[in-house]
Amino acid sequence: MTAPLDIIIMAAGRGTRMKSRTPKVLQRLAGRPLLHHVLDQAACLQARRVVVVTGHAAIEVEAACAGPKGAGAGFDLQTVRQEPQLGTGHAVQQAVPLLAGDGLVLVLSGDVPLTQAGTLAALVAAAGPDRMALLTVRLPDPTGYGRIVRGPDGAVQRIVEHKDASDAQRAIGEIYSGIMAVPGRLLAPWLARLANDNAQSEYYLTDIVAMAVAGGVPVAAHCIDDALQVAGVNSPAQLAELERAHQLRQAARLMEQQGVRLADPARFDLRQDVRSGAPGELACGQDVEIDVGCLFSGRVQIGEGARIGAYCHIANARIGAGAVIHPYTHIDGEAAGVEVGDGALVGPFARLRPGAQLGREVHIGNFVEVKNSTLADGAKANHLAYLGDATVGERVNYGAGSITANYDGAHKHRTVIEADVHVGSNCVLVAPLTLGAGGTVGGGSTVTKSTPPGALTVARGKQVSLAGWKRPAKQPKG
Amino acid sequence: MTAPLDIIIMAAGRGTRMKSRTPKVLQRLAGRPLLHHVLDQAACLQARRVVVVTGHAAIEVEAACAGPKGAGAGFDLQTVRQEPQLGTGHAVQQAVPLLAGDGLVLVLSGDVPLTQAGTLAALVAAAGPDRMALLTVRLPDPTGYGRIVRGPDGAVQRIVEHKDASDAQRAIGEIYSGIMAVPGRLLAPWLARLANDNAQSEYYLTDIVAMAVAGGVPVAAHCIDDALQVAGVNSPAQLAELERAHQLRQAARLMEQQGVRLADPARFDLRQDVRSGAPGELACGQDVEIDVGCLFSGRVQIGEGARIGAYCHIANARIGAGAVIHPYTHIDGEAAGVEVGDGALVGPFARLRPGAQLGREVHIGNFVEVKNSTLADGAKANHLAYLGDATVGERVNYGAGSITANYDGAHKHRTVIEADVHVGSNCVLVAPLTLGAGGTVGGGSTVTKSTPPGALTVARGKQVSLAGWKRPAKQPKG
Amino acid sequence: MTAPLDIIIMAAGRGTRMKSRTPKVLQRLAGRPLLHHVLDQAACLQARRVVVVTGHAAIEVEAACAGPKGAGAGFDLQTVRQEPQLGTGHAVQQAVPLLAGDGLVLVLSGDVPLTQAGTLAALVAAAGPDRMALLTVRLPDPTGYGRIVRGPDGAVQRIVEHKDASDAQRAIGEIYSGIMAVPGRLLAPWLARLANDNAQSEYYLTDIVAMAVAGGVPVAAHCIDDALQVAGVNSPAQLAELERAHQLRQAARLMEQQGVRLADPARFDLRQDVRSGAPGELACGQDVEIDVGCLFSGRVQIGEGARIGAYCHIANARIGAGAVIHPYTHIDGEAAGVEVGDGALVGPFARLRPGAQLGREVHIGNFVEVKNSTLADGAKANHLAYLGDATVGERVNYGAGSITANYDGAHKHRTVIEADVHVGSNCVLVAPLTLGAGGTVGGGSTVTKSTPPGALTVARGKQVSLAGWKRPAKQPKG
Repeated sequence: MTAPLDIIIMAAGRGTRMKSRTPKVLQRLAGRPLLHHVLDQAACLQARRVVVVTGHAAIEVEAACAGPKGAGAGFDLQTVRQEPQLGTGHAVQQAVPLLAGDGLVLVLSGDVPLTQAGTLAALVAAAGPDRMALLTVRLPDPTGYGRIVRGPDGAVQRIVEHKDASDAQRAIGEIYSGIMAVPGRLLAPWLARLANDNAQSEYYLTDIVAMAVAGGVPVAAHCIDDALQVAGVNSPAQLAELERAHQLRQAARLMEQQGVRLADPARFDLRQDVRSGAPGELACGQDVEIDVGCLFSGRVQIGEGARIGAYCHIANARIGAGAVIHPYTHIDGEAAGVEVGDGALVGPFARLRPGAQLGREVHIGNFVEVKNSTLADGAKANHLAYLGDATVGERVNYGAGSITANYDGAHKHRTVIEADVHVGSNCVLVAPLTLGAGGTVGGGSTVTKSTPPGALTVARGKQVSLAGWKRPAKQPKG
Repeated sequence: MTAPLDIIIMAAGRGTRMKSRTPKVLQRLAGRPLLHHVLDQAACLQARRVVVVTGHAAIEVEAACAGPKGAGAGFDLQTVRQEPQLGTGHAVQQAVPLLAGDGLVLVLSGDVPLTQAGTLAALVAAAGPDRMALLTVRLPDPTGYGRIVRGPDGAVQRIVEHKDASDAQRAIGEIYSGIMAVPGRLLAPWLARLANDNAQSEYYLTDIVAMAVAGGVPVAAHCIDDALQVAGVNSPAQLAELERAHQLRQAARLMEQQGVRLADPARFDLRQDVRSGAPGELACGQDVEIDVGCLFSGRVQIGEGARIGAYCHIANARIGAGAVIHPYTHIDGEAAGVEVGDGALVGPFARLRPGAQLGREVHIGNFVEVKNSTLADGAKANHLAYLGDATVGERVNYGAGSITANYDGAHKHRTVIEADVHVGSNCVLVAPLTLGAGGTVGGGSTVTKSTPPGALTVARGKQVSLAGWKRPAKQPKG
Repeated sequence: MTAPLDIIIMAAGRGTRMKSRTPKVLQRLAGRPLLHHVLDQAACLQARRVVVVTGHAAIEVEAACAGPKGAGAGFDLQTVRQEPQLGTGHAVQQAVPLLAGDGLVLVLSGDVPLTQAGTLAALVAAAGPDRMALLTVRLPDPTGYGRIVRGPDGAVQRIVEHKDASDAQRAIGEIYSGIMAVPGRLLAPWLARLANDNAQSEYYLTDIVAMAVAGGVPVAAHCIDDALQVAGVNSPAQLAELERAHQLRQAARLMEQQGVRLADPARFDLRQDVRSGAPGELACGQDVEIDVGCLFSGRVQIGEGARIGAYCHIANARIGAGAVIHPYTHIDGEAAGVEVGDGALVGPFARLRPGAQLGREVHIGNFVEVKNSTLADGAKANHLAYLGDATVGERVNYGAGSITANYDGAHKHRTVIEADVHVGSNCVLVAPLTLGAGGTVGGGSTVTKSTPPGALTVARGKQVSLAGWKRPAKQPKG
């Protein structure tokens, strides 16, 4: 295929059955708008120009075209509005004036997210300067769909609607997918001849097939068996079905290409990060194990031999080699990222928030939250603790229940805990302050000033026991 | 169908293969006893009278009939005991004396929970004052089941047991479901003629089919393809299979009717609340998103645009519009209910217990428990905290690790935190007390008395550092 | 079958497609190396001797043979190296010298984990002193596999490779599984006659089939329909597929044999404990309910009527009758075990670590961690607490946020809390110490010395309020 490739993406539909305020083509599959999945296909095909035909909620759809994060670009992207919406042929008519006419035109739907680039490349290859091509699919049960009637040479003769089909034609399992590739120089004159003398008073793009045949232009068909590749999203149930198919494919790719051991490929999710738009990318070293039910979003790296426990949620983070993330651990680095050092142990029930940077062999235990804090190699916070805006030195032991009071109601302040400090249980460290290296803070202390290195610091009341004190008792009923 | 409808439900079976102390018809599907699912069907059909035939564990089953919560009522419900249990015909014999005889009698099984009301209505319509009707099902592999032999006119001629069937009859895929509708005036005389001269010495209800045919009474069959609708529960494996089918149907309904976006319909559960018996009902506004693995029980409402993260458990609660419930959040309002205000953020790892009432934009963060407490708009408790029996004002910031000590060993007391108070980290608020508006409590304070508005309150020890103190050290081995 | 049974297990393969440092036969299915699953089969068959043929990563595989924990033993186990690796026939040649030659030899693959012992027993029974037998499987689509050509008497005539097969032979659905049983006295001479004059220059074990037929030795075939039983693991995707099949079988067995009610058999995992090698065994009393997504490892017992909530992780533990484990509870007893008493309530979000021993009716609530501690009947720790190295008496109420400071930086010390003590909120108990029976510790106290029975002990600062104090305020922007 040497002719330049232009792509028209139909994205004007309302999608009423979605019952959503969001236009259909902006519904998310794996966290990514459907339309962006289609734009990704265009990028893979190295298209020259892409025209998105908008209509329903045009402003939103156009905005999504303005910066399709991660779409790969490489092509010139324009939008055109179809108002009113008078059918698929009418939609393509709006876009054609924006194309040079010297290339091949591929017509895609903005709500068909799972077509593989290889399939489209084969379709494009089946077309040519003097030949159009349809993408078709063979269905076990084609009832209701337009059948592809081929001639003895295999070329398409016509598309017959189900209701018009003979018994012999109804036995045909091959149907039209909605995707076609047409020589640009032929497309415009054919479109000009479309009529809307049908029940819906719409202009149907498929009518050009008859024009091609009548004009002696060969119509090829590239037929696939995998109906998911051409499945559109019209309802939440269809969206869910494609989501699962997509996730299973991602899981299969991870296992095959990276050797990841997934405990259950059917319970795995990898998604675009919805807030940042960072694509869902999981890069794993050798011998990574991921237990059931984990969710990943944004860019995640996992080092060699690391193990991710069941039901973890990991986003925008780098996990070091040999690290063990125990079950129910929630990690989301958002824009700042999270780093987990080699050999670190995290969880269960831990939460690492943006800017958490854990060194080698750091231990973060149950019910511990870390935010915007650096923990040097070998530091530990094993139980029920909060570290926010802290710089924690090597081998620090941060006691159960201890808290960095980093917020004075207006500003965040930094807590510095130097190497080898031991912080006791249920301490409060009122930032800003520095705990000097090698020092110890006694359990239950509220520390408001910096402490000297090597010293024991306590800040607590004297222990007193009152004999004879009566604890309130429940009154006997009566 | 204008004749009154009476229903007999066979519920005497032991269900040995369940290996349970609970009688089979009281095993729970989606948290609801099987028998109550069948009573729901009766309610949908607007039955006049329902007679439940009990036997095994009759007292328990009768108790479950006494107040079948949520069953819808609208009919007169009676029970009758079948002792000993001598077959299906014998079971129906026990019930017939309780019926007027002027209506149509529908015979159901208490362990067949998923028959759709529309199916039963069609069966009832197929019967009539002078005609009985069988519910039949077409199976891909009918081996072992009694086949439906129909005449040229489509009427049932007989039911042939598998072992007695000819090769031609074995090729029949249509089998009897166990459900039939019979004119009441014919049923009693037919039952009186049943014999038990068979290997099991049981009275078989199906023998009346031959009586009908012999007597010239037409026997219609309403045939369905969906075997799940007539599947009985005889083992934990069958119960699990029906549970999954039921949950998938509920998920499909939510997506179709309410437009809910379910990340994975196969990982979704909606159940009756087992303790209260509140039916499993999920009412969602537009554009609600529910991530994988969530469980709902009792009555739950979710407002427009709210998002429920993965693996949440939500029961007896109302979630406001635009609220975000992060993963692993456990909400159970039990009888008191839980309210989450519009735009609130909850979780991950949060727990809301009965009587938690969160206003608009309230934030409840990780490892925070709220019970029987009201939080006004904009209040925050973001980390490792407990709020029990508290009244929290607008914009209060409740510090990490802080606890309301609401229990003196005998009674619960109330903590009042007025608007704009900041409570520091790791504080203890010993109830009853009131923290005056705009006040601040220093970190690590144990507050035992009410505090004035606008003041800073501290209750902690003086910070002292002891130089030269030696931390205990591990003895070198040797 | 009265001849002694010897087994050869081929375990020399590299498994390149696994992309792993671990040799293929040591990849884990349900936490257990594939090879150990095969050794389990040998144990079930009461083999006399087992020879494992090693090659790739021989040292690791031999080490795994040295102490195959839980394999059941009962047989003599030897290993032999195949270097270089010249095909299946060559592999068996290495092992034969280690066998006595008077028995039947069963040839298994170390990467085929799910063959059922009954299947192998039937195969062995089909062979005999003068008869070899092949395990075959009937596939819906046998494309690519060697077909089993049987004679009119049903005996195997030959195995025809797919590429050599006629159309009639390609229509055969029965293929060879890779598993055979051969009389030992015939095996050695046949192996001696193997040639490697083929494209791969390998010695194929299947060539002995032709020798048998040529020599008039009958070749029986035991044919099964369940392809999973003979499926090998060559890639992470295949491993995942067999993992799911195995887990579903375990789930089915639990439901059928123990009557366990599993909310979703497809979301259930039971595994060997990877660290200890304790087999994955779940023993349940009557009427145990297990909600969706639970994971079990090592030996776990669950008492009658206990309920396990969704997404729990339970390892090496005993759960008492009637106990309720709420969702997201993490229990791992490791070597020390965990005991949960009858009627105890645990979770949600609780963690029980090694040596946690809870008496009857103990309550462990959200965000509570218990390690190496005994809690007597009726003790409670309901919120955000840590109990480590503690002995807790009957009816103790351990307050929210309270911590046992059991570690002085070098040693762990014990905390003893006698019966009926109430520990307030956010207390620190600095071990070693004893809280005397019936005493009370005021909220926020740091207790460093033992306390007398019945007394109220407090250790906290005096509450002071400073009027007119100004909380830091955000600067107005501008």
